[in-house]
Amino acid sequence: MANPLVGIVMGSTSDAKIMQPAAEALAELGIECEVRVLSAHRTPDAAAEYAATARERGLRAIIAGAGSAAHLAGALAARTTLPVIGVPVSSSALAGLDALYATVQMPPGIPVATVAIDGARNAALLAAQIIGTADPAVAARLDEQRAEMARKVLAANE
Amino acid sequence: MANPLVGIVMGSTSDAKIMQPAAEALAELGIECEVRVLSAHRTPDAAAEYAATARERGLRAIIAGAGSAAHLAGALAARTTLPVIGVPVSSSALAGLDALYATVQMPPGIPVATVAIDGARNAALLAAQIIGTADPAVAARLDEQRAEMARKVLAANE
Amino acid sequence: MANPLVGIVMGSTSDAKIMQPAAEALAELGIECEVRVLSAHRTPDAAAEYAATARERGLRAIIAGAGSAAHLAGALAARTTLPVIGVPVSSSALAGLDALYATVQMPPGIPVATVAIDGARNAALLAAQIIGTADPAVAARLDEQRAEMARKVLAANE
Amino acid sequence: MANPLVGIVMGSTSDAKIMQPAAEALAELGIECEVRVLSAHRTPDAAAEYAATARERGLRAIIAGAGSAAHLAGALAARTTLPVIGVPVSSSALAGLDALYATVQMPPGIPVATVAIDGARNAALLAAQIIGTADPAVAARLDEQRAEMARKVLAANE
Amino acid sequence: MANPLVGIVMGSTSDAKIMQPAAEALAELGIECEVRVLSAHRTPDAAAEYAATARERGLRAIIAGAGSAAHLAGALAARTTLPVIGVPVSSSALAGLDALYATVQMPPGIPVATVAIDGARNAALLAAQIIGTADPAVAARLDEQRAEMARKVLAANE
Amino acid sequence: MANPLVGIVMGSTSDAKIMQPAAEALAELGIECEVRVLSAHRTPDAAAEYAATARERGLRAIIAGAGSAAHLAGALAARTTLPVIGVPVSSSALAGLDALYATVQMPPGIPVATVAIDGARNAALLAAQIIGTADPAVAARLDEQRAEMARKVLAANE
Amino acid sequence: MANPLVGIVMGSTSDAKIMQPAAEALAELGIECEVRVLSAHRTPDAAAEYAATARERGLRAIIAGAGSAAHLAGALAARTTLPVIGVPVSSSALAGLDALYATVQMPPGIPVATVAIDGARNAALLAAQIIGTADPAVAARLDEQRAEMARKVLAANE
Amino acid sequence: MANPLVGIVMGSTSDAKIMQPAAEALAELGIECEVRVLSAHRTPDAAAEYAATARERGLRAIIAGAGSAAHLAGALAARTTLPVIGVPVSSSALAGLDALYATVQMPPGIPVATVAIDGARNAALLAAQIIGTADPAVAARLDEQRAEMARKVLAANE
Repeated sequence: MANPLVGIVMGSTSDAKIMQPAAEALAELGIECEVRVLSAHRTPDAAAEYAATARERGLRAIIAGAGSAAHLAGALAARTTLPVIGVPVSSSALAGLDALYATVQMPPGIPVATVAIDGARNAALLAAQIIGTADPAVAARLDEQRAEMARKVLAANE
Repeated sequence: MANPLVGIVMGSTSDAKIMQPAAEALAELGIECEVRVLSAHRTPDAAAEYAATARERGLRAIIAGAGSAAHLAGALAARTTLPVIGVPVSSSALAGLDALYATVQMPPGIPVATVAIDGARNAALLAAQIIGTADPAVAARLDEQRAEMARKVLAANE
Repeated sequence: MANPLVGIVMGSTSDAKIMQPAAEALAELGIECEVRVLSAHRTPDAAAEYAATARERGLRAIIAGAGSAAHLAGALAARTTLPVIGVPVSSSALAGLDALYATVQMPPGIPVATVAIDGARNAALLAAQIIGTADPAVAARLDEQRAEMARKVLAANE
Repeated sequence: MANPLVGIVMGSTSDAKIMQPAAEALAELGIECEVRVLSAHRTPDAAAEYAATARERGLRAIIAGAGSAAHLAGALAARTTLPVIGVPVSSSALAGLDALYATVQMPPGIPVATVAIDGARNAALLAAQIIGTADPAVAARLDEQRAEMARKVLAANE
Repeated sequence: MANPLVGIVMGSTSDAKIMQPAAEALAELGIECEVRVLSAHRTPDAAAEYAATARERGLRAIIAGAGSAAHLAGALAARTTLPVIGVPVSSSALAGLDALYATVQMPPGIPVATVAIDGARNAALLAAQIIGTADPAVAARLDEQRAEMARKVLAANE
Repeated sequence: MANPLVGIVMGSTSDAKIMQPAAEALAELGIECEVRVLSAHRTPDAAAEYAATARERGLRAIIAGAGSAAHLAGALAARTTLPVIGVPVSSSALAGLDALYATVQMPPGIPVATVAIDGARNAALLAAQIIGTADPAVAARLDEQRAEMARKVLAANE
Repeated sequence: MANPLVGIVMGSTSDAKIMQPAAEALAELGIECEVRVLSAHRTPDAAAEYAATARERGLRAIIAGAGSAAHLAGALAARTTLPVIGVPVSSSALAGLDALYATVQMPPGIPVATVAIDGARNAALLAAQIIGTADPAVAARLDEQRAEMARKVLAANE
Repeated sequence: MANPLVGIVMGSTSDAKIMQPAAEALAELGIECEVRVLSAHRTPDAAAEYAATARERGLRAIIAGAGSAAHLAGALAARTTLPVIGVPVSSSALAGLDALYATVQMPPGIPVATVAIDGARNAALLAAQIIGTADPAVAARLDEQRAEMARKVLAANE
């Protein structure tokens, strides 16, 4: 079995349903991933360790999904210079607006690549795009997927 | 010189002006404090270490001020069970709303005692109230301060 | 039976379900509490009296939960220098955003330690942390609870 | 000199400039008013006393201006069944949105008649309209003022 | 049968359920009211006529409930110097925030006394308070109602 | 001189600076316009009359700019079936968000074509596009203008 | 069969239910329309082509409905000088606020005539108003429809 | 001279000052970039062409900065499967909130890696991180930069 290239991390098992499309999208593209539950607040050491060792374990990108005061993506990004992709999860009374701000408004020096609220599928596609910058086969599969999406939309007009 | 009882931590030297009233308010009440610049994202290890050793060094509360995706208070709170008081700083385009959400919307298990945007003075008063739960002299000084505030307001009517 | 150390006050019986986790969290930690329904607007005198006598009755912290133009925590804080912890309740059309602003944006002089919208459990943990600043047994229990939380998160990865 | 019919209360002397147009508008209409600085949080007893005795002292309406977690109008309204008119003041980082929510989102039973952020002039006109329901002379002056406003707008087209 | 003293106007029959508590609250206080469906946009002439003749028909206040770009209260207020009380209705995707802004943010010269989103009951109590400024019997009934509310809250503690 | 085809209406002379680009854009395209100051609240009859007679006077579209609880566009739209274009003006503490909601969130039956906050130039271009649906010369001028805009952007790359 | 005068475009088949009232409203007024599913992001070429050829195919206006980062109306507007009417769809966690901002806040030069969130019916009425500027029969039908709406509202009072 | 690896695109020359730090950050890291002014709305063809040919011209990532209804990043992302990084620019009355929503809330299938409002420097660091996934020298320089950032923060404590 191939080494995972993408790590999918979520702050709580209650985020699993929202994050599921990320794993599915990577599987569609034939990209190996690993899934972890790690909390920036309840398991800060384990989260820090996960990010700090991510590059040497062969990961090319980390996807982090969390809700409320969503620090997870930023906490991982603070420990690695791999691209970290943040998925704000709409699990609180503020419908994910809190998670969006807490994920995207990172200070200069530590970027998080933020996607839409509950946008786990796009997080995976972005990870694949990152891998595709150095792997023409992945880039080609992404291009095919785009063409197929376009065909489906146009088919709805017939 | 007495041991500091309160740590004032800020994510960046650019927050110093906003956080200054916290140190002043503690000085008014005769409570020793220490001031640190520690970033949840740029110095995550130092921030974690600071919080993890806070109780054994004699601190009773930590005040953390940060702007944007303000993770600092939450990151410190993840490493200690001392009360952590968060001051959202209005340094971004969103006027502190991002910092407020990122500070107050903590998940169950890891509370942050959040005060108003740029509310550094109230953070210090809250720290003093916490100390005052076990130190009648501090409680008495807080009560005197309240009475003095009331007198000033009423004097404005004369 | 021990004296209550924490008062849990809510503005309306309709907030009881949201505030229930506060009482439960204190019970888990072996901290005695009392529960009151007192409204800043409908019973202002009783609310004022409750806060004004809280310290002499042995309380160390007051937790106040209210929705809409949530004045309860601020109204209690105006009458005591004990720490007052505010829980904004998401009972209105604005999903608790009104209660959050009305609770956290206190003017200089009268702090309210605000937790997340509907964050009653964290309010109780914060009260316990405050008590723990002078009671090592409570602090130790909080540390154990943290370790247990971390174990549960990590167990989800196995 | 006539008894004041309207009380203008502000939470802080720093709100005086915003509240000034209320006094001016009442003067234009020949309605006597009194101005007080009273804080819901720093002088809760004086504020409560002011409202509780307002009707017997001859007031017909109270105008309350405050910023941030603006509890003043609600705190006064809790102590009187005279109409209380709230002016949210834009003095905080949130540009008055916090004060608006804290003033207008009152729970059932205790209304506050809220006007626009910094809308002190309209607060006075509303107080005059309330007096005008029983005082035809005031109502007539309000009607004249309206006609004059319309003339001024139309004159801008010439 | 007595003349109605309060007009309750709503922009659409779909607002009837939200506005119902206004009529009920006035009935509890023995204040006669009339209910109309009039739209600022679909029946602007009828709405203008209603407001313009309100005082001469004996009304003391008008309550106007509307959702979305809620112009109704302002449109009525533009045609009368009677107090107009606006109820923002939460019928749109924006949960009443649009209606709140469209109702409360009136320009200088034309006030609308705005209550909480969906706050029809408080609109009625405010109308009663206005009537009570000149009618001691109504004022007395409001005071009794307040005392009864307080008793109910306190009874919840037994 | 040709008949005006577009009416530019603003709620207050203080909006003139924001609305100026609308007149300029129409002049660039050789479309005659007229400018009026008319308030939905201070001159409701004149505003109603203006809209009701707009079509018979030869207008093809009305542009309405207003701030705060911006009812002007909706009030005009209620009196004509000509297209009414609303420009929310950022003149209040809420930076035009109130005006945006009050302009765009119109109920079914009475549309307002809303452009960006302070977007007076685009309002004029939209009016020209409407005229262009039946006037090929105007459509051609709009196409030329577009081509010129593109040239200017591309020129910035040289 | 007559040529369509209005194109209704939606970004996804999932928007069909929200956009349905646009087609119905045009049918009521006897205005021919065509319906397309075209995505600014998944079929950018087809969307561009659709708009670029719209005028020569006889369209007088395009209605575009999309949710989330709703670029569709703007993308079409970038390729034609026909009026483009945008309908922000409330399909995301942000309840259409994202779609509203992404549709209405167009930069100078490329207007989009934006209607309310989910306001498909009003989009159609606006398209009819545009056609009615040059087609008196359509204008007359719109006037009749208005009169009928007013009658229905007034009938609710009987 | 080396081929550019990163394209920095902005919607208007008025965004140049905000986007400048992106070019500077890439220069610090020794990564070649090219800068273009291309508008999704005013030059849609040139923007589409730029993205469509980006991979074959050797780019590894595109950074797109735009304000208001910021479609630029999404429009480029629609034409390439290279990673597109969006910088919401705070140039409108809504302080960049409109640009944030319009950039981050992309529909499934077409991701945009969004950074903070005005976060051009972080956009460049993210582009460098993407390049660093396949270029160990760039990754090493990023790690050194992080260490240097930490040193600077810690030095502020001495």
